Amino acid sequence: MGLQTQTALALPRGAGRPIDADSLDALRRIVGAEHVLTTDGDVEPYSRDATPLFSARPGAVVLPASTGEVSAILRLATERGIPVTPRGAGSNLAAATIPEHGGVVLVLTRMSAIREISPDELLAVVEPGVTTAELADSCAAQGLLYAPDPGSRTVSTVAGNVAMCAGGLRGLKYGVTRNYVLGLEVVLATGEVIRTGGRLWKDVAGYDLTRLLTGSEGTLAVITEVTVALLPMPAVARTGVAYFDTLADAGRAVAAVIHDGIVPATLEFLDNRCINAVEDFAKIGLDRQAGALLLFGDDGTAEAVERSITLMAATCERIGARGVTMARDVAESEALLYARRCSLPALARLAPVTLLEDATVPRPRLAEMVDRIDAICARHDVVVATFGHAGDGNLHPTIVFDPADGDVRHRAEAAFSDVFDAAIELGGTITGEHGVGAAKRPYLQRRLGADQMALLRRLKLAFDPAGILNPGKLGS
Amino acid sequence: MGLQTQTALALPRGAGRPIDADSLDALRRIVGAEHVLTTDGDVEPYSRDATPLFSARPGAVVLPASTGEVSAILRLATERGIPVTPRGAGSNLAAATIPEHGGVVLVLTRMSAIREISPDELLAVVEPGVTTAELADSCAAQGLLYAPDPGSRTVSTVAGNVAMCAGGLRGLKYGVTRNYVLGLEVVLATGEVIRTGGRLWKDVAGYDLTRLLTGSEGTLAVITEVTVALLPMPAVARTGVAYFDTLADAGRAVAAVIHDGIVPATLEFLDNRCINAVEDFAKIGLDRQAGALLLFGDDGTAEAVERSITLMAATCERIGARGVTMARDVAESEALLYARRCSLPALARLAPVTLLEDATVPRPRLAEMVDRIDAICARHDVVVATFGHAGDGNLHPTIVFDPADGDVRHRAEAAFSDVFDAAIELGGTITGEHGVGAAKRPYLQRRLGADQMALLRRLKLAFDPAGILNPGKLGS
Repeated sequence: MGLQTQTALALPRGAGRPIDADSLDALRRIVGAEHVLTTDGDVEPYSRDATPLFSARPGAVVLPASTGEVSAILRLATERGIPVTPRGAGSNLAAATIPEHGGVVLVLTRMSAIREISPDELLAVVEPGVTTAELADSCAAQGLLYAPDPGSRTVSTVAGNVAMCAGGLRGLKYGVTRNYVLGLEVVLATGEVIRTGGRLWKDVAGYDLTRLLTGSEGTLAVITEVTVALLPMPAVARTGVAYFDTLADAGRAVAAVIHDGIVPATLEFLDNRCINAVEDFAKIGLDRQAGALLLFGDDGTAEAVERSITLMAATCERIGARGVTMARDVAESEALLYARRCSLPALARLAPVTLLEDATVPRPRLAEMVDRIDAICARHDVVVATFGHAGDGNLHPTIVFDPADGDVRHRAEAAFSDVFDAAIELGGTITGEHGVGAAKRPYLQRRLGADQMALLRRLKLAFDPAGILNPGKLGS
Repeated sequence: MGLQTQTALALPRGAGRPIDADSLDALRRIVGAEHVLTTDGDVEPYSRDATPLFSARPGAVVLPASTGEVSAILRLATERGIPVTPRGAGSNLAAATIPEHGGVVLVLTRMSAIREISPDELLAVVEPGVTTAELADSCAAQGLLYAPDPGSRTVSTVAGNVAMCAGGLRGLKYGVTRNYVLGLEVVLATGEVIRTGGRLWKDVAGYDLTRLLTGSEGTLAVITEVTVALLPMPAVARTGVAYFDTLADAGRAVAAVIHDGIVPATLEFLDNRCINAVEDFAKIGLDRQAGALLLFGDDGTAEAVERSITLMAATCERIGARGVTMARDVAESEALLYARRCSLPALARLAPVTLLEDATVPRPRLAEMVDRIDAICARHDVVVATFGHAGDGNLHPTIVFDPADGDVRHRAEAAFSDVFDAAIELGGTITGEHGVGAAKRPYLQRRLGADQMALLRRLKLAFDPAGILNPGKLGS
């Protein structure tokens, strides 16, 4: 068919080369000289994101203030073959915003206004750089819930969440970012500004570009406005915690909860090593002997929550929990949720490097997957702790190590490679919510197969003929 | 950029020509001679779908029994430039399955098995041709809810629902088909079989092809397996009805319900002409004098439903409803829902031709839009009745006429053209849930703009280089 040659996308002409002086001048004319950073010190923070072990120096960092400026920058970049890596806060954990081929890091944080929150239409319209927490807090002040709640919410941007299709602790009941994006304004690599979707819950005019762009990791277009759906704020939210001797028992409790017809807002787990790391870090009185901690929570009307929380607690006891505790008030609830939220910082204290992964399996395979992770990591002689979203099978196995320790980095990478194989073998995926980026690029074809990879490349080309947008990631 | 020439997709070579004898033989070898229909009488039912006024004779109708057969057919069609129009029950209302350029109508109804219903994983895996109702009923028998409920559910197929991203009466609370598709097996136009998504609630490995294919109207690939998400069956469901003097009042009631923090399962409306058509048809005692009927309903735990139904009824009375009635039991609930479900057949009795449309506006503009529709239709001297989903602003203005009545068809088309302009002007869209097909093709660019239309064509080309799949629709 000749498709292979057509779709073997070359990197943009300027990949790996310094940005020429004329182009820098043109960028300065577009955004103002003070918004083009080029010195080592100024660009250094943009050479990395929240992913350990990845960095690359960009030629320049450009901070536009408007859709028109973004359009002018992309038009220039396509004409001259300059790589452009769009970025919000850079809080992603997949090395998705590393400018591996140099060029421009396009930072959207100057465009951070909340343009509208509409209680009547249950939606908000925001600029790309507003933080998730600021949006959520502003909505909450009007009695509205912005449901996606990624762990990075206090720093991550809404457009960054969209670009990565961020998940969070409420995914089981509420879904992920994808489920809340109603419309986008984006700039194509060739400079055209298009609007997808809008303010409507139902709209099937054309291909679903809104969802295609969600999770496209900055490789297809640059997001300049996001319209998100909101929900009425639930009247009450309650949380409890159950300890089990083994993760298999916790898995059985999760299965029994679902079997009872309950799909709660929160079903999170920590393994024993996480429990101890969190207890060392936060000293909140967790049961250090437990093989697994299961955090369960729900929100809604008072009666419905009372019913589901009581049922979940009873189910955990029936399955043989070592102990079940219910938060008595919001403060206790927050303390329990904090145990889960602080897992990553707690583990980060164990060793200089913390490699957090994101393998996901069908819910009933969760305990089996954790066992496999432990066996794989023992075989590769690396220290792993696992926590994650028990309700949707999304695990965050986390390997901690000291890079001074010989070839440990390679052992960790070999372990994760085996972990991804195991996840795929159990019907799962290499990433549930963190994305592919540069970090999981080597494993993507295992999950998708060669035919789908070729299709991804053709899609990328349809959006970005010069290959300037985040080259090397996803469809590149 | 030279993109225009690249993307001005030609029709496939064989468009509009008879299928040659050699290709017919090849098709017979693939599926068996008895599954290739070619006589006028045999192919006639496949020359039309549920959309009035559209028809075109296919060269052949081919009914494959497996993914392998679908792959062989598409490979052949791409090699020889034969148009292929994939089809399930043909119950769509957008002329999306009319084989306008001849070729093969590929009917997936022989592949109709429910492969799996998993209460543990809250999902089902089905072949493309199973009907929506059969899937929903089989799930219900296991205490599980398949939420999408398009009006055509007793005849429509699940893959047809996916291809059109079908909506339904529960869209406000539960969303549409898109929200329930976890994974797809599809055959590309060039014959490759790919699997997108899977059995996971969270999976961000690669572009979101699952959602891109949902609503792509058979123009990008042929769906051969669907994995859908299920929910626990709600314990109870209740329904009520309120009558208002004007649609504006009903709109105010809807706004007040949302303002109270309630997002119920059902918020449907009928205008006065619909009320009378339904009452003539079904004789269920509706208030013929009312300007609007608002059907409201919710499901969930008994307490939560009691609360929301009571609140909605009280809100309707506060806004000044002429009357509010609550269904006392399931039978009465079904009778009320039937008033809404039978709107189309009831209107169809008024005149030989019933043109049902699907304009959608932001919820607060609903009453204004209905007023505009009435004014537009009066100006064009056509009879219109409007019903639809008040909760999500999705209107179904329906023009009824007798084609013997002079140029009425052109007046109806002119009226709908103005209706679409009005919907777009109010921030809405030309189709909320029925799709574009051939019926709304003339209006798509008004909604998307030229740049997005060009992008759609490039996407289509990335999937279907020979342009064989449902040529003339969406990205063609």
